[in-house]
Amino acid sequence: MTGIPPGDVMRREIAEQPEVLARLLADGLTEVKAVSETIRRRAPRFVLFAGRGSSDHAALYAKYLVEVRLNLPAGLMSPSTITAYGARPNLRDVLVVAVSQSGGSPDLVETVEVARACGATVLAVTNEPGSELAAAAELHIDVRAGTEIAVAATKSYTAELLSLWLLVDAWQGGDGSGARAVPMAAASLLARAVEAEQLADRYRFTDRMVLTGRGYSYPTAREAALKYMETSYLAAQAFSGADLLHGPLAMIDQNHPVVAVVPDGVGAAAMRPVLERLRGRGVDLAVIGGRESTAYGTVGFELNHGLSEELSPIAEILVLQHLALAMSTVRGFDPDSPRGLLKVTQTW
Amino acid sequence: MTGIPPGDVMRREIAEQPEVLARLLADGLTEVKAVSETIRRRAPRFVLFAGRGSSDHAALYAKYLVEVRLNLPAGLMSPSTITAYGARPNLRDVLVVAVSQSGGSPDLVETVEVARACGATVLAVTNEPGSELAAAAELHIDVRAGTEIAVAATKSYTAELLSLWLLVDAWQGGDGSGARAVPMAAASLLARAVEAEQLADRYRFTDRMVLTGRGYSYPTAREAALKYMETSYLAAQAFSGADLLHGPLAMIDQNHPVVAVVPDGVGAAAMRPVLERLRGRGVDLAVIGGRESTAYGTVGFELNHGLSEELSPIAEILVLQHLALAMSTVRGFDPDSPRGLLKVTQTW
Repeated sequence: MTGIPPGDVMRREIAEQPEVLARLLADGLTEVKAVSETIRRRAPRFVLFAGRGSSDHAALYAKYLVEVRLNLPAGLMSPSTITAYGARPNLRDVLVVAVSQSGGSPDLVETVEVARACGATVLAVTNEPGSELAAAAELHIDVRAGTEIAVAATKSYTAELLSLWLLVDAWQGGDGSGARAVPMAAASLLARAVEAEQLADRYRFTDRMVLTGRGYSYPTAREAALKYMETSYLAAQAFSGADLLHGPLAMIDQNHPVVAVVPDGVGAAAMRPVLERLRGRGVDLAVIGGRESTAYGTVGFELNHGLSEELSPIAEILVLQHLALAMSTVRGFDPDSPRGLLKVTQTW
Repeated sequence: MTGIPPGDVMRREIAEQPEVLARLLADGLTEVKAVSETIRRRAPRFVLFAGRGSSDHAALYAKYLVEVRLNLPAGLMSPSTITAYGARPNLRDVLVVAVSQSGGSPDLVETVEVARACGATVLAVTNEPGSELAAAAELHIDVRAGTEIAVAATKSYTAELLSLWLLVDAWQGGDGSGARAVPMAAASLLARAVEAEQLADRYRFTDRMVLTGRGYSYPTAREAALKYMETSYLAAQAFSGADLLHGPLAMIDQNHPVVAVVPDGVGAAAMRPVLERLRGRGVDLAVIGGRESTAYGTVGFELNHGLSEELSPIAEILVLQHLALAMSTVRGFDPDSPRGLLKVTQTW
């Protein structure tokens, strides 16, 4: 219609990520530090996250960070208990973190309003400082990704991940410098778009896919699955490596491709038995990760990004975003306008 | 091999459920009441659940109960943060509930041991009072389902749901009598196995399916999806009604069947816009639920079980279990021995 090639918007937003992440590190730290100081003073004993879609996956990443680095129990909220069932939980000593690109979803706004009234410290992490959600929360972090136009979130997702990492780091007294290498790591993967696009040919005719990971990279598997549902209309499912062995493994045969996200680290050790089971069953397996793990794959993509396991999700998703873009366009779809979706989803 | 028809074990275990539930109401209340009194004395401020597979879905059901009826914040644990990453969270004032049919999964046992050492009150809900998990926890509830042989959990799932309902009810001072009608409701749906089996013909050739529900019945959608993955090797996915609209909706076309679980109540009202969107897109939709909701379906199954929305999950899953059994056998599979699975999954 407009003369723009299919996926052009998504491609440009994917490509912006190194710059978006660098900008966040340069401009966002002051805000994050101020927010983290307020939170530290409140000394919450429990952290609850709320988000939908990609922002839910960013929330899940942050849940791992809070549990592992801060040793605080954490959970994901089920907004319907508040918005539909009228729950009014006792949220004294609770930090509620609502994550949303647009800050415009009515159920999140209501959840945040109720959470404040119930005694929680409430932080909104959004890409829209002027949004209703940002206004409803006591604290706000702007992820500074710039306006996102494509329906499939890309740069806002990695900006949410980095914002949440910086928050936890500052909460622990860090100065954010641990994340210095992230923008360059993202750029290094951006430069390898062709390799990801080659993978897309392999998946030209599948209508289903399983993604798996464990620990910090499980949210990457979830986020990739959502991209493939949204832009290639695949029945893409994500399971933590442990959950995969509890049942879903049965459905995986030689015609059901599996993509495992396994950067080096503790999660990779925990994924080893999963990779062994999959290889033992002759499954078509693509491994995106460290060298030892990729050796288990029918095909492999070595990350070589130099990031720790904890930071890897902020960069590794770029490979899977490129795969989404290539799978969608090779099938003749336009990932910029998935059928039946709008950029801001209104749910109550 | 053994002369037993395929699915015979699963069929018998499905059929035992009215009796299992009645037995639990008759024999289990004393234990539940004692456990609930200990918990009330401790006055936990947060509740964390841990479980895998079907038991994870029972945990999710209980999370809704705790949030809505007890107004306590709750979450689902990510065991890997403890078992792989070595997190040692501060669990003072936290109740940890581990749910497991076998009580034999090493990662849950370790999670429970660490949780106790970190100050939590720990309850195990299992079908095996002699299990390691039961021994590791301070408190135990036996769901009394009797030995479960089929790999696909059925009677242990509904027994877990009812046990958790009774726990929350007793915690609130109830005497469990609110659940009196559950065994008969389960029996009424058992008697309608033929209707569920007719649905199976409709799905003879699909290799994918989406299940959806909201609130208390969202765990039913999750549990049904797991049965279809395990026994018919379908790429079956479950989404809460709200999450479905945030992306996955795009993948659903006329050849991608959707099953919605919508018993009358608050969740049904929240599902109305979802049913409207699906109908508006011409999706093949089966609705299992109340009369008004089933009217949205291409096909419908009216529950007519007389249960409240809150108790409905304990009975409504029987319809979806029958569907699993019929889909699997009509395809020539044996749901009693899914490929690649054992009854007790060992994950670390």
